[in-house]
Amino acid sequence: MTSRARTAERLFGQEISRLRKNRGISQEELGFQARVHRTYVSQIERGLKSPTLAVILKLTQALNCPAHRLVGNIERKLKN
Amino acid sequence: MTSRARTAERLFGQEISRLRKNRGISQEELGFQARVHRTYVSQIERGLKSPTLAVILKLTQALNCPAHRLVGNIERKLKN
Repeated sequence: MTSRARTAERLFGQEISRLRKNRGISQEELGFQARVHRTYVSQIERGLKSPTLAVILKLTQALNCPAHRLVGNIERKLKN
Repeated sequence: MTSRARTAERLFGQEISRLRKNRGISQEELGFQARVHRTYVSQIERGLKSPTLAVILKLTQALNCPAHRLVGNIERKLKN
């Protein structure tokens, strides 16, 4: 992965963590709702894994946030 | 992967293929520009792989299409 990619993953993780905390749910609960293993949620939030399109859609759906909005936030932050 | 995910991958592949053909470049050229192996581009376009966030950003950047717009197109089509 390039450093740009690593940054994108870190930004994605931050966005997911923020949305999850806004909803007041644990990583375990988010994992359950999104059908993603809780250890994977933890890795995603820390930017250690590059989420697949499938996981991006599952997590954002569970968090009631359109995936395109979250991706747009990441693109904006990458430009700055 | 769920069937919803497989559909998302197929839609993503169709969008990438469409954008690439609009630009008149081969899978090999897109792979070169996006720094993704051409066989991976081929698998992505056929919906056989779920692209990571890193790959989504690399391919859309190489195709001069904001990633959030492409993801938004996929979300709209998944709803229909």
